[in-house]
Amino acid sequence: MTEFDNSLKIGILGGGQLGKMLIQSALDLDLEIHSLDGDGESPCSKIAHYFTQGSITDYQTVYNWGKDLDVITIEIENVSVEALHDLQKLGKKIFPQPEVIEIIKDKVIQKQFFKDNGIATADFVIVNNHTEISNHISFLPAVNKLGVGGYDGKGVQILRNEADIEKGFEGRGILEKLIDFEKELAVIIARSESGKISAFPVVEMVFHPEANLVEYLFSPASISPEIETKAIELAKMTAEKIGIVGLLAVELFLTKDGEVLVNEVAPRPHNSGHQTQKGNFTSQFDQHLRAILDLPFGNTQNIMPSAMVNLLGEAGYEGVVKYKGLERILSVENIFPFFYGKKITKPYRKMGHVTILDSDFDKLTEKVNFVKENLKVISK
Amino acid sequence: MTEFDNSLKIGILGGGQLGKMLIQSALDLDLEIHSLDGDGESPCSKIAHYFTQGSITDYQTVYNWGKDLDVITIEIENVSVEALHDLQKLGKKIFPQPEVIEIIKDKVIQKQFFKDNGIATADFVIVNNHTEISNHISFLPAVNKLGVGGYDGKGVQILRNEADIEKGFEGRGILEKLIDFEKELAVIIARSESGKISAFPVVEMVFHPEANLVEYLFSPASISPEIETKAIELAKMTAEKIGIVGLLAVELFLTKDGEVLVNEVAPRPHNSGHQTQKGNFTSQFDQHLRAILDLPFGNTQNIMPSAMVNLLGEAGYEGVVKYKGLERILSVENIFPFFYGKKITKPYRKMGHVTILDSDFDKLTEKVNFVKENLKVISK
Repeated sequence: MTEFDNSLKIGILGGGQLGKMLIQSALDLDLEIHSLDGDGESPCSKIAHYFTQGSITDYQTVYNWGKDLDVITIEIENVSVEALHDLQKLGKKIFPQPEVIEIIKDKVIQKQFFKDNGIATADFVIVNNHTEISNHISFLPAVNKLGVGGYDGKGVQILRNEADIEKGFEGRGILEKLIDFEKELAVIIARSESGKISAFPVVEMVFHPEANLVEYLFSPASISPEIETKAIELAKMTAEKIGIVGLLAVELFLTKDGEVLVNEVAPRPHNSGHQTQKGNFTSQFDQHLRAILDLPFGNTQNIMPSAMVNLLGEAGYEGVVKYKGLERILSVENIFPFFYGKKITKPYRKMGHVTILDSDFDKLTEKVNFVKENLKVISK
Repeated sequence: MTEFDNSLKIGILGGGQLGKMLIQSALDLDLEIHSLDGDGESPCSKIAHYFTQGSITDYQTVYNWGKDLDVITIEIENVSVEALHDLQKLGKKIFPQPEVIEIIKDKVIQKQFFKDNGIATADFVIVNNHTEISNHISFLPAVNKLGVGGYDGKGVQILRNEADIEKGFEGRGILEKLIDFEKELAVIIARSESGKISAFPVVEMVFHPEANLVEYLFSPASISPEIETKAIELAKMTAEKIGIVGLLAVELFLTKDGEVLVNEVAPRPHNSGHQTQKGNFTSQFDQHLRAILDLPFGNTQNIMPSAMVNLLGEAGYEGVVKYKGLERILSVENIFPFFYGKKITKPYRKMGHVTILDSDFDKLTEKVNFVKENLKVISK
């Protein structure tokens, strides 16, 4: 472990909500944060110590921005990895490492990595277009995922039968056996340069049927201690095989036979860890900073059982954001809203989340429904 | 209760650590924060949405800054109250109200207010100079406090006997009977425009012998339920008599006879509430914003017993700040540092604090000592 140096210049590629919440954590340690994003009104734009407007996928922009920084991290995978490789050669600490981002940002490579490294995952084939999908009819029902360019439920399509094939992508990707899962789980792992590793409790996710985004989750998941151990061990093994420094969010399927499979991973803070800000002693954002600075990890235990509800832009509203119903939800104990500060709302856009605590699981569920019914993100 | 309006422009007068922590809370609600401070490198300067460098005591500067804002609050009492009065006349919401700041910022008026309103407090006389102090020798041992201009232990002097009189102030202030107290307690009250009131648990403070600042505190205080009720009722009554909207930090003496007396009050977030960020479900900063926006108050309960250690600049060091020992303190469970982001450290300057949680009081005390021994704020 090296001595903490508060004069390090830390860069975050991407200025969205994950970057914003990283900055909020970084403020407690008096860290100097530089942020780069193409959107001059992104959530980080007004709160980073130094904000630069520019393309995070453009080599020269990223290189120029990064060359005077000391440690660089990301809040989104779709960045110029080439620039990060060259910045690494200059001696910059790039966490997650460019080679890790390369494995993860392309779902074909990611999936092949799981297979090559004995990481339990659903069967798959690589496909490039409808014709190739047609060659794997026996594989249906399946999930067709684009190799690159997907995010927040985009670039993912379920193909249930032959008639669905036309909904598949004309582009390089995978066709993955549809898992008839019992639950979708997730584990956030933190790993440091010196190899220390830490896991947050397993959470259970429920997806929004239309938006294909996490609609809400519970922490901890209602699973047996055996499944919990299996999930955490699989997630840790995945992080170690990848060799990541930083957070690795590991999304898992729990099959009806009690098998645990890796669905996909993200090399950064993740939606499945947002409830840690209020629900756990250490947040995923704090933990990510500790990982990339090689500081000792914080206590990941739950303070209390928690739920997290994503706040998506209400269908039918597009324009300057307005939050409706805040007074009502704040009148109920231990409900904590987090609004991301995006100026413009659109249908299903991630605009914030709400963390809810309750020692009683039934009450937690009631509060989730109460929040979903009462808090709306609309436009003015 | 009015409907929450996230387009309100909120101003904070003063750019120090209290402003910074208010901004950190405000970010969760997507509130637009404007900050004014004379120091262009103050903790708020880089993280406020809009930072203006200018004197908070200058009428015209404060008036010009405030005239386009909607809600204005303070993080320090030493501001141009005249400007706030005139901004209030323009229809701006000023919380705490200018008339409340006037009562509190002058310790003579504050003390007289307690007396006039039947708020239990130590006996006192008003004095303007050494000669007047000499006329009250029978009052010694006593505390001589300047009416205005004191902060962080400055402007306060204990006069134990006649020989000490020369240490007294040549200036308008009070001479207050020295209370032979059992403990020093504090209660943070939040009060909203509609009169809702809420109290945080009573905390117990230990002062630094040389710096006359809170060195550390425990929450909750080790006191009987009767004393706890007495302290909270007295603090609530004080807030109601003053009619404050926002937070009122009420510092109290518990005498050896079990009497509770108001020592002094502050109309804003306060050092005695810093541990609420990690130790309580709602922080004092969240609660202050809820008070000034007339939102329902959050749950003030302790998550776990907590302690807070102030990080003062180490004696013998002056210059660009450096934090020594962070790795060591983070290696112990549930120790959370908050560095304020002040560029320059000076002996005894408040540079940060550390919040510590432990369900066991003895371990909490051990951790307090561990932090005090291992974490130092020095210069490069």
